[in-house]
Amino acid sequence: MSPDIFEDPSDTREEILAATYRSLATYGYADLSIGKIGEEFPKSQSLIYHHYDNKEDLTIACLEFLLDHLEREFTRFEGDSAREELEQMLDWAVGAAEDDGSERFLATLFELRARSPHNEAFREQFRRTDRIFEEYTAHVIRTGIEGDEFRECDPERVAKFVQTFITGASFRRATTDSVDTLSPLREEMQWYLTRRVFKG
Amino acid sequence: MSPDIFEDPSDTREEILAATYRSLATYGYADLSIGKIGEEFPKSQSLIYHHYDNKEDLTIACLEFLLDHLEREFTRFEGDSAREELEQMLDWAVGAAEDDGSERFLATLFELRARSPHNEAFREQFRRTDRIFEEYTAHVIRTGIEGDEFRECDPERVAKFVQTFITGASFRRATTDSVDTLSPLREEMQWYLTRRVFKG
Repeated sequence: MSPDIFEDPSDTREEILAATYRSLATYGYADLSIGKIGEEFPKSQSLIYHHYDNKEDLTIACLEFLLDHLEREFTRFEGDSAREELEQMLDWAVGAAEDDGSERFLATLFELRARSPHNEAFREQFRRTDRIFEEYTAHVIRTGIEGDEFRECDPERVAKFVQTFITGASFRRATTDSVDTLSPLREEMQWYLTRRVFKG
Repeated sequence: MSPDIFEDPSDTREEILAATYRSLATYGYADLSIGKIGEEFPKSQSLIYHHYDNKEDLTIACLEFLLDHLEREFTRFEGDSAREELEQMLDWAVGAAEDDGSERFLATLFELRARSPHNEAFREQFRRTDRIFEEYTAHVIRTGIEGDEFRECDPERVAKFVQTFITGASFRRATTDSVDTLSPLREEMQWYLTRRVFKG
């Protein structure tokens, strides 16, 4: 979920997207320019123009790459149980600071998401990602119910609630709050899950 | 909570802030310029420079004005009971479309909030607003507990949870979701409040 994906770009296109990500994370979208991206790019700046028309096109390509990665990494059932899977998801969102670039990564995504009302291509990307995360969360809950690990509930509705909570908590974390101030949130989410979802 | 506050500016300074708000809502912060603000301003553009140095200064002044208004309007106990007060808060956040400019207003605020990692003055404004909303929500919950209307619970923790949910839901509403797709969220929040806060 951190931007390691850009540590070892496989071709010129990925090198350009890596440079775009670093510039976005440093300056934010509002202050981004092809010139600044060029400073992060080890080859000739003219190559950037060869592949992309402008800062918006480049940002969309970078966003698509980031979200594809996020989806692949976060919709892989890795817990030993449905409960563990759900808890891992929440621990990540409201979890301990790891100083692994996560907050920068989140902040970059949220700035682009907040531009959605002015950019239909951004909007489409985030809609797709929300849908995939929600479907995956509902799948985990359904698995728990079928395995008699979870209580009977509406998996889609609970998934939407949990994902909205994660969006709110990680938006706060990226913009105004330290991880410390968010720990009561994780406890309260646990209160809810214990009564709504987890058995025993 | 809609931007009616700008309908009847009381002096030149408010006229400038109103023009800034309209430009922000139309173009977003990333594409804002003093020139564009000038197009929305009925007087000479030089007056803008007389009051503010640049687009950032102007945006901060506008943000402060918007958030002051939001705080005044939303921290006034208006329900007949603590329960009604809390429900009104949630209905507004995940509520029916009113086409009163609310979504545009929210979208404008979220774009500025998402710029917080790059702008300490923005960050400070949103931190203050979060704190005020959270304290107010905790106050409503405490009032309900004291009046024997609400169950015993930790008012601060529940307030933080509810406010994070509201942030997540209204961010989704402003960026990717229609009000329709959010109605299951309101129902799920009701499930939580019925067991956690409301009595009987």
